[in-house]
Amino acid sequence: MGYEAPTMRRPIVSNALLVPMLLATVAATMLARPAAAAEPGSVDMLPILAGLVLILVGAKLGGALFESIGQPAVLGELLAGIVLGNLGLVGLHGLDALRTDVGLSILAQIGVLFLLFSVGLESDVKRMMAVGLSSLWVATLGVVTPMVLGYFVSSWFFPAHHPMTHWFVGATLTATSVGITARVLADLRRTDSKEGRIILGAAVIDDVMGLIVLAVVAGIIEAADRGAAFAPITVLWIVGKSLLFLIGAVVVGQWLSPRAFRLASRLRGEGLLLSVALAFCFGLAYLAGASGLAPIVGAFAAGLVLDEMHFRELRERKGETRSMHELLQPIATFLVPVFFVLMGIRVDLGAFAQPGVLNFALVLTLAAVIGKQACSLGVLEKGCDRLAVGLGMIPRGEVGLIFAAIGAGLMIAGERVVDDGVFSAVVIMVALTTLVTPPLLVWRLRPLDGRKTTK
Amino acid sequence: MGYEAPTMRRPIVSNALLVPMLLATVAATMLARPAAAAEPGSVDMLPILAGLVLILVGAKLGGALFESIGQPAVLGELLAGIVLGNLGLVGLHGLDALRTDVGLSILAQIGVLFLLFSVGLESDVKRMMAVGLSSLWVATLGVVTPMVLGYFVSSWFFPAHHPMTHWFVGATLTATSVGITARVLADLRRTDSKEGRIILGAAVIDDVMGLIVLAVVAGIIEAADRGAAFAPITVLWIVGKSLLFLIGAVVVGQWLSPRAFRLASRLRGEGLLLSVALAFCFGLAYLAGASGLAPIVGAFAAGLVLDEMHFRELRERKGETRSMHELLQPIATFLVPVFFVLMGIRVDLGAFAQPGVLNFALVLTLAAVIGKQACSLGVLEKGCDRLAVGLGMIPRGEVGLIFAAIGAGLMIAGERVVDDGVFSAVVIMVALTTLVTPPLLVWRLRPLDGRKTTK
Repeated sequence: MGYEAPTMRRPIVSNALLVPMLLATVAATMLARPAAAAEPGSVDMLPILAGLVLILVGAKLGGALFESIGQPAVLGELLAGIVLGNLGLVGLHGLDALRTDVGLSILAQIGVLFLLFSVGLESDVKRMMAVGLSSLWVATLGVVTPMVLGYFVSSWFFPAHHPMTHWFVGATLTATSVGITARVLADLRRTDSKEGRIILGAAVIDDVMGLIVLAVVAGIIEAADRGAAFAPITVLWIVGKSLLFLIGAVVVGQWLSPRAFRLASRLRGEGLLLSVALAFCFGLAYLAGASGLAPIVGAFAAGLVLDEMHFRELRERKGETRSMHELLQPIATFLVPVFFVLMGIRVDLGAFAQPGVLNFALVLTLAAVIGKQACSLGVLEKGCDRLAVGLGMIPRGEVGLIFAAIGAGLMIAGERVVDDGVFSAVVIMVALTTLVTPPLLVWRLRPLDGRKTTK
Repeated sequence: MGYEAPTMRRPIVSNALLVPMLLATVAATMLARPAAAAEPGSVDMLPILAGLVLILVGAKLGGALFESIGQPAVLGELLAGIVLGNLGLVGLHGLDALRTDVGLSILAQIGVLFLLFSVGLESDVKRMMAVGLSSLWVATLGVVTPMVLGYFVSSWFFPAHHPMTHWFVGATLTATSVGITARVLADLRRTDSKEGRIILGAAVIDDVMGLIVLAVVAGIIEAADRGAAFAPITVLWIVGKSLLFLIGAVVVGQWLSPRAFRLASRLRGEGLLLSVALAFCFGLAYLAGASGLAPIVGAFAAGLVLDEMHFRELRERKGETRSMHELLQPIATFLVPVFFVLMGIRVDLGAFAQPGVLNFALVLTLAAVIGKQACSLGVLEKGCDRLAVGLGMIPRGEVGLIFAAIGAGLMIAGERVVDDGVFSAVVIMVALTTLVTPPLLVWRLRPLDGRKTTK
């Protein structure tokens, strides 16, 4: 503690060469390794392990680079991913398999669950309710405006396509990817600001709305392709179960959580606090997914429900001094960068080369950015930075990509609803909205720090 | 801290019902959920999430049950897995998919890497070297004796099978699954005892030896099936690269590790200590796998190489007060039980019903247990409990199962080298050796605790 590290005078060139050396070794053995015959009943762990090494090292180098120029680390992680994922453009195809690796994809999705669970833990239901009406308005405006804009952009670029394609493109613009914004807000220590709570609440609500829109649009397309009429009862059912889940999760969860932790405090064994919390997180994520919602909605709800009060008894009986945040942090350090680097890896810079795709992608991105600025009109609170709310709602992510993938699998009148060009454009839109948000939010929120401290 | 939790007087029946209720809900929704159409390019996370909930809750309940009767928690985790994996026997088939779920398998394999990494971190190369000759002798006797016994048992039960089948069965008996023993030793706080170090060292060595035996036997079978002669140079190459890896990992790792942490101490960002350590663990696991060894050998080597000294500077610069052990512990709490419960889930009690399989399995298990008792003859140190070493070497695990799976995929003279009956018997042998070891080790080592404290 009292020991001061002596300043190193040795040249660091040899050390600076270490990382490229290490990465080159892993990449080279990955390239040189003969395609191993898959043993029956076992998973080939080697691509996953190599991917994890590249992701961990890339995330830390990219993050350090961006932090040193005053940008949030998450942007560096995304760019590290874009570099790793697009080495094929300079003829290095050894890492192409990272993009579709099932193992990395699973770890990334568990990582984003931990992120949303942490965000939920730091959020407070009562304080969230206080801005609930604003969040609802912000979400509604942020779903309707981009959807309509997306419809018009798509029908302007592709007048020959079926109208349902245009609605589908609109639907991909609805859901905010709260992961990026949550991470930037956490990096700026503004998760619990009024703007932060409105954005996080609205992102959860528009995720639900987006999923409802998707379910409805996909239902209409499937019915139209079968030649059958679309039953309005299905719309009601989709809407109903979504609302039911969220209200149910919070009500049942708040009843169940203190009892589950009290029961656990009577069990023998180690790691009970973390294990029960994880079971809660995964359980609600599962139930959200089983209700047709995104599992991250459940993880967020689990975080909202759990309260330090619920596990005070367990903590005291087991002599656990670490907070839930401290217990989750190492797991998040491991898994959250996997999500962000993998999102970067999935950006295919090669898609820009297709004619028309670039223009459509850029105009679609513009529609996505402008559309969400309508959100600022939904903010009811005074003394709240409306622009910051609009900017925070810009990023689209996983859900947009999932929508595009679903559209690519739907047919109407013998054609794919989302063809390769539209799909690439949506991917580019997701990437660009993700990339522009952190610098815009930092630009807008950092000067407000002074205001916050004086108040 | 000074607050004393009041004794709860409320009846706990309502709380005791919570866990079955929760599990029933997850299981019921899992059963009721219609088979979802897999979206292209995305993984269905729902079975993984449901599996994680069941595994986390089952592991803690099973562990608590066994700890309350004075047995190590790991046995409870295995039995929780056996229950979850064999509900099909009572007509509940909703969880059958857990056994083959790719996501859970990946998480389990990462979990066992963390376990071996932790074991390596707590081991000390110099103190390991001090018992190195004993470990080498213990490993050699523990490979040769079970292999010969396995050959005779197999040729006695199946005289019509090709002799190579018998050698293959012998090979499945060679490799000790250090995971179970390491966990029991940790539960008893005897990882760093003389017996503990001999067992762990020998388990690493016999893993390498077992993999060499497998590679050689599989090579001879493939050559025989092609009608070609087996080239002795291949044997030399397999042996050579294995030794090369281990020596190389320790030598290069000890040179690289302080430099990598010093470089990281100059980077901006959070979680650098853990991230570099994880990259080391996964990197060496990858290189072990790429050299044809089990990735756990690399994870163990990474733990051996890393030393608190290497990251003192990084820790001081970042103000990190937690030890590496404390940083790894939450990840291990999450992932290590996944491995043990999944091993339990994979035990197919139904295989016992096949005629002959049960007898063969029991005699094979006996051969596995007796064969490893030869290990006690290899202990050179005085004042060391030879029986405890022999007992600690009993469990077979992953590697034995992998061998059996490889054998099931090999053909000789038009027949599978390892048929369904032999495969089931090997699985049962792995399960039984795993189940008998913890109580035997506890029985043998617990009375020695007094001796240890008086010395």
